[in-house]
Amino acid sequence: MDYGSRQKKFQQTLDDQHLDGFVVTHPANLRYLCGYTGSNGLLLFLPGPSRAKAAVTGYPKLAGRLTFFTDGRYSEQAREEVAGARVVICKGPLLYDAAKLIGQLTSATIGFEADYTTVAFAELMRKLVHRRIRWKPVAGLIMQQRMVKDPDELQLIAGAVTLGAAVYEEALPSLRPGIRESEVAGKLEYAARQAGADGMSFETIVAAGKRAALPHGRASRQALPRRGFVVVDSGVTLRGYCSDMTRTVHMGRVSREERRWYEAVLEAQLAGIAEVVPGITAGQVDQAARQALRRAKLDSYFSHSTGHGVGLEIHEPPRLGKGQAERLEAGMVITIEPGIYMPGKGGIRIEDMVVVTDRGCRVLTPVSKELVEI
Amino acid sequence: MDYGSRQKKFQQTLDDQHLDGFVVTHPANLRYLCGYTGSNGLLLFLPGPSRAKAAVTGYPKLAGRLTFFTDGRYSEQAREEVAGARVVICKGPLLYDAAKLIGQLTSATIGFEADYTTVAFAELMRKLVHRRIRWKPVAGLIMQQRMVKDPDELQLIAGAVTLGAAVYEEALPSLRPGIRESEVAGKLEYAARQAGADGMSFETIVAAGKRAALPHGRASRQALPRRGFVVVDSGVTLRGYCSDMTRTVHMGRVSREERRWYEAVLEAQLAGIAEVVPGITAGQVDQAARQALRRAKLDSYFSHSTGHGVGLEIHEPPRLGKGQAERLEAGMVITIEPGIYMPGKGGIRIEDMVVVTDRGCRVLTPVSKELVEI
Repeated sequence: MDYGSRQKKFQQTLDDQHLDGFVVTHPANLRYLCGYTGSNGLLLFLPGPSRAKAAVTGYPKLAGRLTFFTDGRYSEQAREEVAGARVVICKGPLLYDAAKLIGQLTSATIGFEADYTTVAFAELMRKLVHRRIRWKPVAGLIMQQRMVKDPDELQLIAGAVTLGAAVYEEALPSLRPGIRESEVAGKLEYAARQAGADGMSFETIVAAGKRAALPHGRASRQALPRRGFVVVDSGVTLRGYCSDMTRTVHMGRVSREERRWYEAVLEAQLAGIAEVVPGITAGQVDQAARQALRRAKLDSYFSHSTGHGVGLEIHEPPRLGKGQAERLEAGMVITIEPGIYMPGKGGIRIEDMVVVTDRGCRVLTPVSKELVEI
Repeated sequence: MDYGSRQKKFQQTLDDQHLDGFVVTHPANLRYLCGYTGSNGLLLFLPGPSRAKAAVTGYPKLAGRLTFFTDGRYSEQAREEVAGARVVICKGPLLYDAAKLIGQLTSATIGFEADYTTVAFAELMRKLVHRRIRWKPVAGLIMQQRMVKDPDELQLIAGAVTLGAAVYEEALPSLRPGIRESEVAGKLEYAARQAGADGMSFETIVAAGKRAALPHGRASRQALPRRGFVVVDSGVTLRGYCSDMTRTVHMGRVSREERRWYEAVLEAQLAGIAEVVPGITAGQVDQAARQALRRAKLDSYFSHSTGHGVGLEIHEPPRLGKGQAERLEAGMVITIEPGIYMPGKGGIRIEDMVVVTDRGCRVLTPVSKELVEI
């Protein structure tokens, strides 16, 4: 993984934003920027060479240097994993040591993750440094960079998606009337472990019969019925990257109406995929899927957005929801997952992961979307 | 679960703190206070009757009422789960609807979770209400209440611990030279699902041989060696509550030195347990375990704290670390888990969950701590 390039690019962003430094604590951001996979880490960017002269006493000692802080539990792990940064093992809260280093700057504006830093942590930050250090909350700065995946990441994501699909197909034969939703989830998760996944990327959803009308129906102790839809939404984590897919199967033969519902959702999903191309807004993709359901008079049962970005985290921007103005770019990885949820009757969702390419998109999820009757 | 009592008690705390209301968004706090188990929820406390007259226009319409906000994905789930609060399904960000309601107050001081609310969210809160609404960040207010478990919770925790112990014992026979750490974890996790767990309470740690020196060595693809310690640290979630236990077994016969290490850790663990009684500080319990290791000249290898609270979350206060002044109370549930980690040689950790009783504590984890040689 080319952490050097990522760090350099982010340092450039800091210069562009007139920031003299940045404090990173969100685990996925730490992993992205320096490779650290533990908890309780803090990565400190200090002024890049272009801004260092003004801000730093003792330049160039600190200029553009990256320092990573963690505690004794992670000393070995940090030394193995952290790339491009000096590692400091702290005895107390990491912020104490980081603040000492920041305090060596004569005056500076230091950014931090507004969307992950708690109010309590931010208050402590203010207390620990002298008055000429200004803290500036900035939301989404690292996420903006993470949203467009680099080639290393695309490869890892493709690997996770392939593995996620394989374990779904391995669990599929276990679906039969009478088996508990949680047992299906268990088989899927065991197959994931056996296949070498780090773990699941979110709590496996197996929602059968009327429970299929719950968009987020985590696997329960309920047994699969003889008739009705079963929504299986699952994902694995492999080398840090997430997969996410949903298929809906039907126990027993479908009625004509149920088949019409399924085909409407599938059509909406394909309409969403067909819309994906660099330059289009996230909202337009959502709109395409929603319109397909409207034609089938089912759009009022589609109660969530059409998709979301995926990467080191299972939910990343962009959000493909109504009116979202974010424009898609080549290298983004997103889900396309329309669904309908009819209280008392059940639900259907179909979800693939796709990567935005120069000319459109490539579907990553290698699993058929034909309706399966069991 | 007696959500009514919990809400009433928290409302009393708000009155004591001179707060006219409170915004709750942290998932474990939502579950604790109203039973909701989904994501994206917001529970709003408004002024209790004693403060309502001054603060609220249209009293008693809003007085002491609880309102729960979520989005369309969770409408059925919220109606099933949420106790003691009116449920509002929002189309946009939940805070918009909550702010509209708060804005009906003439003037008020509304608290929020300083330790979970992000700086970005807090900025939005400020923007969305008129000037006579003051926001007050407060850390740990709900956690303070959650720290002492009520009888319902103690029963659920005991159930989770028993199940966690059973799946550990089920996985134990799979430990043999050559099996991958991740396969051991997979067997344990599968057993947990089969036994009806909601899931694991944290990423299962199986760390063998030299990897046992990593206190947080998540199960890797490495095979178990013929000789050496294996640390297995695992927990399940059952009906929302977490279990947490660690046992260290030895592959092959232990040397005299290894047995001395193991016995020193066990002695430290027992010394920690023996110290637990209402009124003692968390730091004193840590000290007792640490001193036992000091007598064996092994304390420099003990690089973390002795334990932590457990409940709806795997890591809750109190933290049983050096100098921690928090006093133990009957009804708290904590781990006692000293360990030693010797780079290049391996590591040992032994962990039980205990509940603080009126006269001392009761060990919940029903698994032998005799050294097992495999």
